[in-house]
Order: sequence, then C-alpha cells, then structure tokens
Amino acid sequence: MTLRLHNYFRSSTSTRLRAALNLKGLDYDYVAYALRDDAHRQPDFLARNPAGLVPVLETSDGHHLTQSLAIIEWLDETYPAPPLLPADAGGRARVRALAGMIACEVHPLNNLRVLRQLERQFGADAAAQAQWFTHWVTETFDALETMLAGAAETGRYCHGAMPGLADICLYAQVWNNRRFDIETARWPTIARIFAALDQLDAFRRAAPDAQPDAT
Amino acid sequence: MTLRLHNYFRSSTSTRLRAALNLKGLDYDYVAYALRDDAHRQPDFLARNPAGLVPVLETSDGHHLTQSLAIIEWLDETYPAPPLLPADAGGRARVRALAGMIACEVHPLNNLRVLRQLERQFGADAAAQAQWFTHWVTETFDALETMLAGAAETGRYCHGAMPGLADICLYAQVWNNRRFDIETARWPTIARIFAALDQLDAFRRAAPDAQPDAT
Repeated sequence: MTLRLHNYFRSSTSTRLRAALNLKGLDYDYVAYALRDDAHRQPDFLARNPAGLVPVLETSDGHHLTQSLAIIEWLDETYPAPPLLPADAGGRARVRALAGMIACEVHPLNNLRVLRQLERQFGADAAAQAQWFTHWVTETFDALETMLAGAAETGRYCHGAMPGLADICLYAQVWNNRRFDIETARWPTIARIFAALDQLDAFRRAAPDAQPDAT
Repeated sequence: MTLRLHNYFRSSTSTRLRAALNLKGLDYDYVAYALRDDAHRQPDFLARNPAGLVPVLETSDGHHLTQSLAIIEWLDETYPAPPLLPADAGGRARVRALAGMIACEVHPLNNLRVLRQLERQFGADAAAQAQWFTHWVTETFDALETMLAGAAETGRYCHGAMPGLADICLYAQVWNNRRFDIETARWPTIARIFAALDQLDAFRRAAPDAQPDAT
C-alpha cells in the first residue's frame, strides 16, 4: 500500500493531512506543487483534482481523494488506530465543530487565492492583506479560546489527552498565522495546546519548515 | 426529545441543517435571529455560541451544538435512518469532499459578515460584492460540475439514488446564489440535481422562503 500526497509545504490544509498521516503511522510519497508558480493549475494536477486545490491523497488503487477534512475522516475510518475523533457522538460533534471553526471560518478566507483576488479586485496591498488575514484569525480565535478555556473536555490537547482532528487544524492554522506575524500569546489556551502539539514528532514532521520543498 | 434550532431563514448553513432534520423526520422548535439586526451578536445568543454564528442546535439535555457539518454528522450518528452518508469509506470520502467544496470553498467567502468586511475595508459597493460572490461560486461550481458529470457514482442526486450530505450543501448554496441572480443553468448536472431535490418535501420545507421569519 503506497499513499501519495500531492501537496505544498506551506499549504495549511496540506499540513493538516501530513499530521494525520504521521499520527496514523502511515508512510507516503511526497509530491510538491509550487502554488506561487501555479503548478496546481496545470493539466496534470487538474486531472487529479478539477478544483485545482491541494492537498490530494492518491490511494494505492489510483483514487484521488480531495478536501483535507474528508480525507482525514477517510483515514480515520480506513486506519482506525489511533483514533482522530472521540468514540462518543457528543465528543465527535465537539471536535468536528472546533475543527470546522478553523476549516470553515478562518482558512477559506485567508488562503493564497483569496489574497490574490483581494489584490486583483480591490488593489489590496500587503498591509491590507495582512489586516484582512488578521481580522478573520482574531474573530475566530477569540471564540475558540473562549470555547477551549471554558470546557471541561479540554485537556492537554483540544479534547482530552489524545491529539485529534481539532488539534490538527489548530496546529496548521497557527503555523499559517506566523506568516503574518500573528502572536498566539493573545490566546493562552491555544498557545498552550500548540506548544504541546509542537513537541510531538507527528506534528513536528508535518510542519511547513520540515518539508523537502520548504524555502 | 425536543430539539431547538437557533437559526435564520436566509442563512445557508441554517438551510442545510433544516434539510437534514427534515430528512431524518425530526421535529424541532424554530428560533429565529435576524442577522441584519445583529441578533446573533447579543449576549443571549453568544452564550449559546461564542463564535456568534447560526445555526446552533440545542439538544433536549441542554447541549449547544455548533458548525452545521459537525451537527449533521452528529444527527447521522444519533439518528442513523435514513443515512446521510454512504456505507463505504470511499463513498463517504466522495460525499464529504463534495460537501466540503461548498462548505469550505464557497460559503465561507460569501456570507454576510464577509460582504460587510469587504465594504468596511475596501469600500465594496453592491456591484463589487456581487462580483466577489459570483467569482467564488463560479470557481467552485465549475469544478463541482466536472466532478459530478464525470463520475459513475452520480445518480439522481450527488451520490446515487438517495439524497445526502452533499445534496444538502448543494441545495442550500443554490438558494444562496439566487440572492445574486446567479443562473444555475450554466451547470447542467447541478441544475438537474437541484431540481430533483426541490421536488422533495424535506428540502422544500427547508428552503429560506418556507420559514416563519422569511421576509
């Protein structure tokens, strides 16, 4: 069984998937696409994913899986140990909601193609793009901090003592924030959880700066 | 068991949840929040969801579930029939990916708070907001049409002969598109699936125009 990951070192959704693969102890081939050179807009990549978005996970039987959260759910169903979601429906809803806050409220507003569209349509310069990026991170991270700090379910990680889906999204987003010099110290619980995750080999090896295409 | 849905008629994520509840045959109390009046930014709502976002599903034991896709997964796990996801991991990955394309690539860029931020930060007027909205719908719907039209798994609905999670997202987004007069005819497979869904009572009753707070 060989898995092949089509991705980009700095892509936050790619970081999520690398962390999930590492947590599951799965080896994979690493194929890099330089987004700034539009490598993901070329025919060979579009044949894998018509949406032109990384990451894509190619399975050994030639299927191309897209959308990072859908792929991580597939990994969790296909390779159940260790689990990335709690066993109880309530816990699963909580973890998926925390993950969704990042995956649906922060990241989609702040990726490269959105910043490019702001520049194209509104002439947004680097400072305006940074203001936009920071606005959406702050909006959601303030709520995320409240929800994490106020819940008994929060442990060493977002949900208890085992890292899972919410941690994967949190870790990738904090890395993304660093590109715009957003200090995590403003959110002490998030900062504490990120620091704990950053000590784990599975996360450390998933970080953008640890990838072969890192610049 | 009484479920209580905190939502808004025009909110696309609220439409998703109403369709899921209807497909499961579940009754619920309907509580409306007028987003244009910032009802979701008041203390009583923020106590339910610190992120200040609808929908919230309040369970009979007083839990407040947030993030529409996480809630729909919870519904599917708690009330398994009829299923909103296929039984096989590959099918589940496909349906979750189609849903994710709308939930992570279209809707987050186009909701009210984003259009307001465009106005605030860049002075975007109604025409510029419509251009922005249409850009992101087109970007993803073009890919979605390719993926739906080209797959043997596509049936009367997004995945076979039973409506599920991807259909829920598609239906809600097409309704959302109408606010900006985006014609679905450009995407024949999407248009065909939407028309099939719109004949189902569970979807029709979930539509924005069928809600008590519709204006």
